Amino acid sequence: MKLGLVGLGKMGYNLALNLRDHNHNVVAFDLNKEAVTKMNGEGVEAFDSLEQVIEKLPSPKIVWVMVPAGDATEQTLVQLKGLLNEGDIVIDGGNSNYKESVRRGNDLKEKGIFFFDVGTSGGMEGARNGACTMIGGDKEVFSTIEPLFQDICVENGYLYAGECGSGHYLKMVHNGIEYGMMQAIAEGFEVLEKSQFDYDYEKVARVWNNGSVIRSWLMELTENAFSKDPKLDEIRGVMQSSGEGKWTVEEALDLQAPTPVIALSLMMRYRSLEEDTFTGKVVAALRNEFGGHSTVKK
Amino acid sequence: MKLGLVGLGKMGYNLALNLRDHNHNVVAFDLNKEAVTKMNGEGVEAFDSLEQVIEKLPSPKIVWVMVPAGDATEQTLVQLKGLLNEGDIVIDGGNSNYKESVRRGNDLKEKGIFFFDVGTSGGMEGARNGACTMIGGDKEVFSTIEPLFQDICVENGYLYAGECGSGHYLKMVHNGIEYGMMQAIAEGFEVLEKSQFDYDYEKVARVWNNGSVIRSWLMELTENAFSKDPKLDEIRGVMQSSGEGKWTVEEALDLQAPTPVIALSLMMRYRSLEEDTFTGKVVAALRNEFGGHSTVKK
Amino acid sequence: MKLGLVGLGKMGYNLALNLRDHNHNVVAFDLNKEAVTKMNGEGVEAFDSLEQVIEKLPSPKIVWVMVPAGDATEQTLVQLKGLLNEGDIVIDGGNSNYKESVRRGNDLKEKGIFFFDVGTSGGMEGARNGACTMIGGDKEVFSTIEPLFQDICVENGYLYAGECGSGHYLKMVHNGIEYGMMQAIAEGFEVLEKSQFDYDYEKVARVWNNGSVIRSWLMELTENAFSKDPKLDEIRGVMQSSGEGKWTVEEALDLQAPTPVIALSLMMRYRSLEEDTFTGKVVAALRNEFGGHSTVKK
Amino acid sequence: MKLGLVGLGKMGYNLALNLRDHNHNVVAFDLNKEAVTKMNGEGVEAFDSLEQVIEKLPSPKIVWVMVPAGDATEQTLVQLKGLLNEGDIVIDGGNSNYKESVRRGNDLKEKGIFFFDVGTSGGMEGARNGACTMIGGDKEVFSTIEPLFQDICVENGYLYAGECGSGHYLKMVHNGIEYGMMQAIAEGFEVLEKSQFDYDYEKVARVWNNGSVIRSWLMELTENAFSKDPKLDEIRGVMQSSGEGKWTVEEALDLQAPTPVIALSLMMRYRSLEEDTFTGKVVAALRNEFGGHSTVKK
Repeated sequence: MKLGLVGLGKMGYNLALNLRDHNHNVVAFDLNKEAVTKMNGEGVEAFDSLEQVIEKLPSPKIVWVMVPAGDATEQTLVQLKGLLNEGDIVIDGGNSNYKESVRRGNDLKEKGIFFFDVGTSGGMEGARNGACTMIGGDKEVFSTIEPLFQDICVENGYLYAGECGSGHYLKMVHNGIEYGMMQAIAEGFEVLEKSQFDYDYEKVARVWNNGSVIRSWLMELTENAFSKDPKLDEIRGVMQSSGEGKWTVEEALDLQAPTPVIALSLMMRYRSLEEDTFTGKVVAALRNEFGGHSTVKK
Repeated sequence: MKLGLVGLGKMGYNLALNLRDHNHNVVAFDLNKEAVTKMNGEGVEAFDSLEQVIEKLPSPKIVWVMVPAGDATEQTLVQLKGLLNEGDIVIDGGNSNYKESVRRGNDLKEKGIFFFDVGTSGGMEGARNGACTMIGGDKEVFSTIEPLFQDICVENGYLYAGECGSGHYLKMVHNGIEYGMMQAIAEGFEVLEKSQFDYDYEKVARVWNNGSVIRSWLMELTENAFSKDPKLDEIRGVMQSSGEGKWTVEEALDLQAPTPVIALSLMMRYRSLEEDTFTGKVVAALRNEFGGHSTVKK
Repeated sequence: MKLGLVGLGKMGYNLALNLRDHNHNVVAFDLNKEAVTKMNGEGVEAFDSLEQVIEKLPSPKIVWVMVPAGDATEQTLVQLKGLLNEGDIVIDGGNSNYKESVRRGNDLKEKGIFFFDVGTSGGMEGARNGACTMIGGDKEVFSTIEPLFQDICVENGYLYAGECGSGHYLKMVHNGIEYGMMQAIAEGFEVLEKSQFDYDYEKVARVWNNGSVIRSWLMELTENAFSKDPKLDEIRGVMQSSGEGKWTVEEALDLQAPTPVIALSLMMRYRSLEEDTFTGKVVAALRNEFGGHSTVKK
Repeated sequence: MKLGLVGLGKMGYNLALNLRDHNHNVVAFDLNKEAVTKMNGEGVEAFDSLEQVIEKLPSPKIVWVMVPAGDATEQTLVQLKGLLNEGDIVIDGGNSNYKESVRRGNDLKEKGIFFFDVGTSGGMEGARNGACTMIGGDKEVFSTIEPLFQDICVENGYLYAGECGSGHYLKMVHNGIEYGMMQAIAEGFEVLEKSQFDYDYEKVARVWNNGSVIRSWLMELTENAFSKDPKLDEIRGVMQSSGEGKWTVEEALDLQAPTPVIALSLMMRYRSLEEDTFTGKVVAALRNEFGGHSTVKK
């Protein structure tokens, strides 16, 4: 199948190779000339002009967008709306907020363009060798692009989830679960680290990943991480987050769905960004006020 | 009423003055000679020998113990069991674990000594000018010592709560609630501190303490704290804890009673004791493994 | 001072009486004729036409809006924008979202109308006899309406908090704290209820409200509640919520401010709305899958 | 290898078959005659007398105990201490509290008996076809019994973790993580269930289990569960727990290790055991007191 690919970052680049290996004819775009050159070197036609890419595609044109969620995706879709025509297909494979995807789907529909919101999981490794994708959009039209997903995903690794928005929604919730699972695993090692016993964490992660109830890809990655740095001495416990966990909690609040574990996973990430907290200062000051408990001076 | 008082720390010293002001005849004991001298200087007879204090008391002897919970209380009660006789009365006004109090009450009962577990709240200020006390022990015998509580507590500020253990139990739960209330207040100011507005926290605490739903002594203390250090710049947000909050959570777990707010208040205190966490390192390492997200090096 | 008052619900009605008692000349409006009649019976001029009310006011006209947040407030302000002129003053005393207030303030400023967002706490009792108010808006113009707040609030019970939005923001955070304090108190009684002791909760609330660290208006109300229904046998533990707690959590997420206690207080409210949960079903099903643990059939 | 096996419940029975299939010579014991008969029918020698089993074993005798944690394990070990001699080996493969295991190890050591605490994960399926085990005890002596673990566990599925107690400790923490992971997954489906989209949960679990970051055995089991009951309509969301999660939280409290996700997972299980809560009643009553918000009558 011939298709356009917008964005040659970590995910887009690996996806291009994955598609190439399955004999799809990718025409890729990135503003960054280095990325374009590198892509060409891998036998994938690439340009630094979106117009050029669109021109190269037969109708109905299929364009897979793989750029950061937010402004970059918004601008790309606005541009594509201008360049594409009725019957063309746009796939957003990034981590967009599902509400945006619903809006964008409706917007593109005005011009007869079909929009698919595709949540992608599995990291760079997945993009390269077999991803997991959750797809929302028009059911009929999906059959046109289904072969792509059959090829680039692992077996049983794609799901047509329903109407527009349902793909990114599933990915959002997936990430909420991911936050909770990661925090659960990490808390377990926190207890081990403070315990009276002297464990080899790499071995612990390995045994937990073989035959136990908690065996999982995340536990496999935990083993990998400990194999490189046995006590994680070299890094700080700063837990960044990229949005989907927050969206999951916001969605849960809107739905009045209690999700304490996902919410706390997120809040502990925020806590990890701080050296000290105003909350702590207030509590310390209050203890001093009523009990004369001494505070720790700066 | 003539009574013995063991322990002239922050709480015991203030309690002695409070009892003295209500015309009770206190004979105080502390191992620390300076504390004894200071007490004598306030017109309260004090000694550095427990035997001497006990000798001075008429039978039935009443001894109020106000020493740190744990070993100090245990040793004092063991000594008192040796020195006292049938019909004598021991009051533990410290922050003992209620299970210890039940055990101690049964132990002293073997020798016919009556034991009262008394939870005391209100801080040093309360001990000095009007405390809040929750009392467990023999109901009949309580009438003998009730006048003491009428005098040293604020109006409606004492409660005979029930059998032995029920006093310290109430104090334990009181402290659990206190942890939750303090954390709630502190989180509120955390939000204000990060907000787009520029609030004067002393004034905020004052207005919240006058007519609002959240008016409380803790909010009054918050106002006091901010009046001394408007942004709490001088202290670190290290939140110590002294045991009762932890006991409340442990009790809740034993009772299968969900207490998320009290539990989280405690856990955020523990979190505040750490500069960095192993939990954070594990999550950061995992994000790096699957997403290539860079970690923060030490 | 002569002013208009829009909305004669629980809060507005009591505020009208409070203003009247302080010799302010209130002209009130409500669509509900019964409410209008009742108000007139109390010696406060009231009409069921907003235009009529506005006409009666001298310039610069002052209008206090006390209607439910959301649509009702929105519609009232749109109407007022039409009826008022440059230099007039609108006060929103309801529980509006601060973002709406910032928007409305800017909108009314286009026509030269001054807008004050006023968070009000203290319940109906406060509205009647002495409220607590947090006020955002133009600092200069505030002096014009300050006498109103001096009269209707308890001593030290009003605060000019800063620019437009800062008043409702403070009220939002106040309610977040309130959620946390209420949940903390309630969890404490949950532990007592499941404990081995047999407490009289009214007496417990009373003693905790006299001299203890956790004395507060909420504890006073707890005593009142137990005085009417000693074990709260007559009601179900369904915890409704009205929005400000949710906004506080959403704001905290936007600010990356960890507020576990406020968040969990809210989530336990949502949990209380459910008889059973899908979360629980999934966990029960999983336990059955891996451990053969029997599930509870419906 | 010839060894005794005590306990033919779900786990012990499957373990016996697993050992048998690997050509170990198991002599099994259970008080229940039916279980004994069934075991004999599977070609595993079994008796309803422990003495008889012990007699059949060559010295040094090896006895694997697989009975419920707590009293049953305690009584078995007391009996075994009487029946066994210096150099013999006892393995506790149940879910015992690690503190008990440390105590029991020391107790058996008095008589020269070696004790191994073995945490076992993987459910019945694992016991039958390849378990995951975490082993604490004497390192030297472990080599004697290591062949058993090589045979009954999956590849890389056993770990000699360290001194006595460290095996059950690892299993305890494993279960704490398990609670958190299960709750995270379940909360995700809770959000889906309340969402605007209409998902097929079996398909969602399947796609999440193929190529995604959250692929795991628990997700596989989730798929199985939904394949049998697509909306889990037939069961109630009552989440029982069996102790290890609670121990993990208690241990975390003792270590001052913040584990909000594991703690909340446990508390939501407790919450699920209740139809209504006293916490909820108190909050509802308070809202009624200050705001006149109506309560839900029983």
